[in-house]
Amino acid sequence: MHKLGAMQDWPLRVMRLVDHAEREHADGEIVTAWADGTTTRTNWRNVAHDARRMAQALEALGIRPGDRVATLAMNHSHHLTSWYGAIGMGGVLHTINPRLFDEQLEYIANHAEDRVLLYDHVWAPVVERMKPKWTTIEKYICFDPPAGSNGDTGFIDWLEPFDGNYQWVDGDERDPCGLCYTSGTTGNPKGVLYEHRSSLLHAMAEIAPDCFDLSARSVVLPIVPMFHANAWGIPWAAPMTGSKLILSADYRPDRMCDLFRDEKVTHSAGVPTIWLGMIEHIERTGEELGDLKIVTIGGSAAPRAMIKWFRDRGVQVGHAWGMTEMSPIGTIGAPPSNWDKMSDAEQMDFVAKQGRSLFNVELRTVDDDGHVLPRDGETSGRLQARGPWVIKRYFKFEEDATDADQWFDTGDVATIHPDGTLQITDRSKDVIKSGGEWISSIELENAAVGCPGVAEAAAIGIPHPKWDERPLLVCVRANGSDVCEGQIREHLTAHVARWWLPDAIEFVEELPHTATGKLSKKMLRDRFRDYRFADAVAMTGRD
Amino acid sequence: MHKLGAMQDWPLRVMRLVDHAEREHADGEIVTAWADGTTTRTNWRNVAHDARRMAQALEALGIRPGDRVATLAMNHSHHLTSWYGAIGMGGVLHTINPRLFDEQLEYIANHAEDRVLLYDHVWAPVVERMKPKWTTIEKYICFDPPAGSNGDTGFIDWLEPFDGNYQWVDGDERDPCGLCYTSGTTGNPKGVLYEHRSSLLHAMAEIAPDCFDLSARSVVLPIVPMFHANAWGIPWAAPMTGSKLILSADYRPDRMCDLFRDEKVTHSAGVPTIWLGMIEHIERTGEELGDLKIVTIGGSAAPRAMIKWFRDRGVQVGHAWGMTEMSPIGTIGAPPSNWDKMSDAEQMDFVAKQGRSLFNVELRTVDDDGHVLPRDGETSGRLQARGPWVIKRYFKFEEDATDADQWFDTGDVATIHPDGTLQITDRSKDVIKSGGEWISSIELENAAVGCPGVAEAAAIGIPHPKWDERPLLVCVRANGSDVCEGQIREHLTAHVARWWLPDAIEFVEELPHTATGKLSKKMLRDRFRDYRFADAVAMTGRD
Repeated sequence: MHKLGAMQDWPLRVMRLVDHAEREHADGEIVTAWADGTTTRTNWRNVAHDARRMAQALEALGIRPGDRVATLAMNHSHHLTSWYGAIGMGGVLHTINPRLFDEQLEYIANHAEDRVLLYDHVWAPVVERMKPKWTTIEKYICFDPPAGSNGDTGFIDWLEPFDGNYQWVDGDERDPCGLCYTSGTTGNPKGVLYEHRSSLLHAMAEIAPDCFDLSARSVVLPIVPMFHANAWGIPWAAPMTGSKLILSADYRPDRMCDLFRDEKVTHSAGVPTIWLGMIEHIERTGEELGDLKIVTIGGSAAPRAMIKWFRDRGVQVGHAWGMTEMSPIGTIGAPPSNWDKMSDAEQMDFVAKQGRSLFNVELRTVDDDGHVLPRDGETSGRLQARGPWVIKRYFKFEEDATDADQWFDTGDVATIHPDGTLQITDRSKDVIKSGGEWISSIELENAAVGCPGVAEAAAIGIPHPKWDERPLLVCVRANGSDVCEGQIREHLTAHVARWWLPDAIEFVEELPHTATGKLSKKMLRDRFRDYRFADAVAMTGRD
Repeated sequence: MHKLGAMQDWPLRVMRLVDHAEREHADGEIVTAWADGTTTRTNWRNVAHDARRMAQALEALGIRPGDRVATLAMNHSHHLTSWYGAIGMGGVLHTINPRLFDEQLEYIANHAEDRVLLYDHVWAPVVERMKPKWTTIEKYICFDPPAGSNGDTGFIDWLEPFDGNYQWVDGDERDPCGLCYTSGTTGNPKGVLYEHRSSLLHAMAEIAPDCFDLSARSVVLPIVPMFHANAWGIPWAAPMTGSKLILSADYRPDRMCDLFRDEKVTHSAGVPTIWLGMIEHIERTGEELGDLKIVTIGGSAAPRAMIKWFRDRGVQVGHAWGMTEMSPIGTIGAPPSNWDKMSDAEQMDFVAKQGRSLFNVELRTVDDDGHVLPRDGETSGRLQARGPWVIKRYFKFEEDATDADQWFDTGDVATIHPDGTLQITDRSKDVIKSGGEWISSIELENAAVGCPGVAEAAAIGIPHPKWDERPLLVCVRANGSDVCEGQIREHLTAHVARWWLPDAIEFVEELPHTATGKLSKKMLRDRFRDYRFADAVAMTGRD
């Protein structure tokens, strides 16, 4: 169509966030609670200035637009600055989860072809161990080197020669700006390549009253690592609104309670496991949550008792659903129009579900043949999503992750209610969600069958009062073998992260299979429906 | 840069709004207060269905994507439906202000090449008068024909044959979707061609806590005509949030008060003149504003007394600045981070200014040579803007309305404060340039109407041999008042700088106004074209 007039060309670029914050909220505070117990304060003026210096430092290293700049770090202001510095010179920020096991760390840094890595001193042992295996990283920067260290360049020292006289690299809004790997259900981790446009649209949606409700008066403390889907986008949302941003490298409940009280936190967000720890601490010590108004709970389903605990204290719970592939927010349970007319029980029932889709996110459920299922609040099926901050293609994949109509299969099983409310009825088939982290059952199984004497193995998640789920490994012994739990455990220890180790191992004569010969997790779960770990029961009894 | 992965392709199209509302807020109410005193209710399910039927009806007429479909109507649900129907089939919605003069009505409908016009019966005399002059309109539809009418087809009858089995026309997010003419300061009205992308991004920004703060629990009543920059975008924002939308074709204060009370309106928006009428009515009758929480005031500066009146009743005032060319919101005065620490006087001072720019809107002031001025809260200059919902090129113009760096000159004169707060001091064409310094005509006028006995005042620049221009103040006395020049001068002396004092004060029976009710400085200047100050020569001698 011939254009007879026009609104402006205006690529949605992430750097507009820090430009806006520097202009409109220059004194807006960013508070860091460091792991060593100290607290520091900075503001958007400083972050913007240091980000420009870092962009200069990266260019001095020969880093070019599109190159990946990795971080291995907890939440703090230098980490925040490094995000804007890396993206500001056109780089792609790759946030690595330091808790991955070595094979994964090796795979993703090499697969991403990271050229620079910035890391916290606390992860120095990991970095030293991995250096021989990381083949593309040319430069290591330590965010917080100890005084007198002879190791890698410190972040402050690295920026020292640069004056911040720098113009951000401009470009298309569909350019990549971030890379975040997700532990897949099968095979290697897969990289989600965020774009400037997707990140900005997600942040614009996130600040809305019916999502995170962030304003210039908000004080927001994400208790979500910055390497988990960019701390759920909160470091993008804060400069957009001028909300005071609290970053904590230390998740211990007493430190958190200090922050809630001293910084007058109004908004927070985290996985259920984090809140379980906080609640246990507060119940024990009598501490309080101060000015907290809204808490967003996501990553896995929020237990009803947790929702009730917050509601009893006047805190609104936003029960969210999302995934790394969705930037990450897909739905959230903001109070609907008839909220004030609902009984307490009706409100509880509403919040216990995962809420409604944000504008720009479309959801549907389909059966195994791909037929769209009704939104009747009963039928459950595979949950599919689409929208501008939903993945199209994983990093370096040859094919799209979506079907012809752009639907992305989330791997979750859900029911959609007539009012659009989402209810996740089953976890994704294979993944065990432990404390907000994902454990790949297939990798556990693969490791287990590598143990001499194990013929077949299946890992499933068993409900756990503290961790949501912990893995149960069910094994079939090879003919004639008398392999025991201890031997399998010893074998696994050499192949998976320690926190992936199953809480129990059970032996069975055979595992259930589908007609096509595939292991049926569903039937296995049915068989172990009432299974509980021995020590989990004891833990429940303590409360 | 080679794309190694991607987020989804997802054009930001306006029709996603009604799709979202139909899916997530199908029962969300749209209430219409009609001019005949009746009130009707519908919901997004019905609006979406009827919009699909209208799209079919337009296609049956041979209307094609890109064609202009005009409306000449007040605020009501049929008008709302027609917006989505016109845009849904790829058309461009042209909202015409029925109160324009015949010459303007003739010019803009012909210039827009409107092919269909939908109108309210109340404007039938205008339509009948204009039909011989409108050369491109092929089909007239009356939204609300009286029973037994033999005139143009009624809206309901027109849709009757169609079943709503229709898929919206898809396309690029930069396609046009709306056209709105702004009465130019000189020459013919100019058309602003809104795009799908600009409309959606503006709506996403508008619902944020620090703009209109709209949620599913909100009840929003725009007292802004739908032909004024799309009722400030509220009919786009409501389906995004599921806010209950109240449309009123009747602006009489008693009817408004009924709506505020009966529908439990929480959010409203309008120009100062509307609120003056409301306040006068409420003061006289003792009626109340019910649940009103936030009122947005824009279009022209909100007087301090009006801001105080709302604040005294617990209503938050969002003082906004914008223009048709900006979709329309540029800035709004949401409470800053230190709001609770501000004194009442400081809060008043803050709200009396026009607030801070929304994320994605950039502002600057420049002097007559184009040099960027400091944000010092003192220097005033020409206000320029850029952003994704700011105009680039007027409809059918050969050249952009922006400079090489995409800055659009707003025609306003403003000061920007160090915290980013905007303070509009004048229209650039109205500013009085005296000896190289600028005198704000608006501030002079505001000071003058504060003098007892002055009903209305206008200040214009008169050529002066030494100072280039000096102010002439033209006043209308209040009924029964015999206020004299000396009294006004004495009053002004206490409120403006000495060198701002007008060189002469003239009294008139009435001041000229435009079709939209704004004071017409242009007509006033024409009237005083040959005016000269008696003592201008003598004054030259004084120095």
